[in-house]
Amino acid sequence: MPSENLKISDLGEKKLIKRLLKRSRQFPFKSNFFDELSHESRSDDAALIDFGENYLVATSDLLIKSSHFPKGMSPRQIGKKIVTVNVSDLAAMGAKPLGIIVSMALPPDLPLSDFDEIIEGILQASEQYNLNLIGGDTNESSELILSGTCLGIIDKEKVMMKSGTCSGDILAVTGPLGLAAAGFEILFDNEVKLKDLNPDYKDLALKHALEGEAQLEKGLSLAESGVVTSATDITDGLLSEIGELIDASADKVGVTLYENLIPIPAVVFEVANLMGKNPFEMALSYGEDFELLLTIREDKFKEIKDKFSLHKIGYVTESGQIQMINKKGETNILTPKGYEHLKNPGK
Amino acid sequence: MPSENLKISDLGEKKLIKRLLKRSRQFPFKSNFFDELSHESRSDDAALIDFGENYLVATSDLLIKSSHFPKGMSPRQIGKKIVTVNVSDLAAMGAKPLGIIVSMALPPDLPLSDFDEIIEGILQASEQYNLNLIGGDTNESSELILSGTCLGIIDKEKVMMKSGTCSGDILAVTGPLGLAAAGFEILFDNEVKLKDLNPDYKDLALKHALEGEAQLEKGLSLAESGVVTSATDITDGLLSEIGELIDASADKVGVTLYENLIPIPAVVFEVANLMGKNPFEMALSYGEDFELLLTIREDKFKEIKDKFSLHKIGYVTESGQIQMINKKGETNILTPKGYEHLKNPGK
Repeated sequence: MPSENLKISDLGEKKLIKRLLKRSRQFPFKSNFFDELSHESRSDDAALIDFGENYLVATSDLLIKSSHFPKGMSPRQIGKKIVTVNVSDLAAMGAKPLGIIVSMALPPDLPLSDFDEIIEGILQASEQYNLNLIGGDTNESSELILSGTCLGIIDKEKVMMKSGTCSGDILAVTGPLGLAAAGFEILFDNEVKLKDLNPDYKDLALKHALEGEAQLEKGLSLAESGVVTSATDITDGLLSEIGELIDASADKVGVTLYENLIPIPAVVFEVANLMGKNPFEMALSYGEDFELLLTIREDKFKEIKDKFSLHKIGYVTESGQIQMINKKGETNILTPKGYEHLKNPGK
Repeated sequence: MPSENLKISDLGEKKLIKRLLKRSRQFPFKSNFFDELSHESRSDDAALIDFGENYLVATSDLLIKSSHFPKGMSPRQIGKKIVTVNVSDLAAMGAKPLGIIVSMALPPDLPLSDFDEIIEGILQASEQYNLNLIGGDTNESSELILSGTCLGIIDKEKVMMKSGTCSGDILAVTGPLGLAAAGFEILFDNEVKLKDLNPDYKDLALKHALEGEAQLEKGLSLAESGVVTSATDITDGLLSEIGELIDASADKVGVTLYENLIPIPAVVFEVANLMGKNPFEMALSYGEDFELLLTIREDKFKEIKDKFSLHKIGYVTESGQIQMINKKGETNILTPKGYEHLKNPGK
């Protein structure tokens, strides 16, 4: 296809962001108000600005009703989500949140009570993560859109980045995967295939889909520990985030995963079974779990594993590939795009 | 109307922002990473975070195609605008920009060349204002939406706020008003009433509507001067911004304007004449001029007037009202909502 006819949908989100940031890096950095201040721009979970011994960390996320607020998500949960997604980016870097600014595009017929509930959700989540709502802006729009920008701070020596892993590191996650995916299946279960699902399972999955929580405390403590070599939060699915860590590494690295080590709760298997879905695809490719994905120095993993309830899921290799060893001991090659692109190298 | 049936359109943007920020201020401020850090939240052009001798300033603006990007605005101009509106907020406080983060919601059929042009516009404007594009995020949406967050820094002693004016101050603007309004009339001139407009006039007005510029240099120098008692940028129209300064003042203040001192270029009168509009309404209520509105200590005004090409348009009073003295010497009372609500108190 001639490049002038390319649509942005031909590239996809990750490539667009890289295209944007690649161009921004070609732009020369400028002098600043203070001599000791210099900027850094990286393709990470958040932007870093040099502030002496610390980085000021700034992250921005935009949530759109049609993509990010499923039917069944209350206005309070919508408000909570704009805080959570931004705090999750800071958690992934180990940065302490300072404050959040929320810009809103609001349909004119939105009930004022819904607006107040959205604010209530923003404030509840802000209190939970110990940060302040420091500014806001409202506009009129046909669709409800929230844009949040969260500022945080982190000691330069302690910041966790997407880059930094090397062969031999342990690959781990902070908690179970696939619960949010199971919750979304329940929310979109128009054919009522899940009506007989155990109510406790249902509540657990819905809670993760509608009120996911950022792993802020763990992120802050893990950064303090100094043994994490790279980190990101799992918003776009495990495989996609593994791809991010591989791309960010200066070395040619790959990952070997063990299927039986992926922490997938029983509810995910049950929902997958009832919906005719692949439970591994739900756990590895759906995202929105907000757990952290980490690489950790192999000799230090035992020390911190229990303290942070970490789940080892594999290790970092020199293969340049994402390999998964299944329960039969067979090796499959996966791609960051998702489990559906699973290819068997033939053995 | 019972409050539970209220829609957000019943309140309007300014009241919604106040409702949002009022609630955020009820939320107790939390301790921070550093003991010396404390937060401040104000209903100003930008949020302030206490950083020792300085404020870190953060502002966020969201632009939506249907409201903010008229037909005729190129992708490059769209990119430029998201930077300009945010830098204008910093200029109003006298803060030096550090960097900008831009989140984008993009229709999937947007040509990639348009995306690249939007980025080009963002980078061009960033270079013009000496700041860096430090981060970005893309999402899919039915409508093109850009959300920008700009970070800046300002010496605490020098920051210009909306609050701070008192009776006797001179009211001034940094440049002509109504040019952007004239440009928008040209862009929306479906009945081709303006076809015989002087081409130089047309270019000037269109330039202001499509590529308005933030008064950053003036804002920085005015903050240095130390004689500005309050300031804001004119994005929503002069009368609306005057209302903001009056509301922000701790004292009961008002403003007296002189109709013949409002700097309205000839093109505005010509466009108004051809379109059957009121030129004063165009200059006072349309907005998007990005000039600064200032109050200045009366005894210092002469010193800085010429240096900054300031236009005195009136003075601050104790009346609690916006009064305008017309060319015949008659006094009219205006409201911040706009010139169309002009009421003659009868004399």
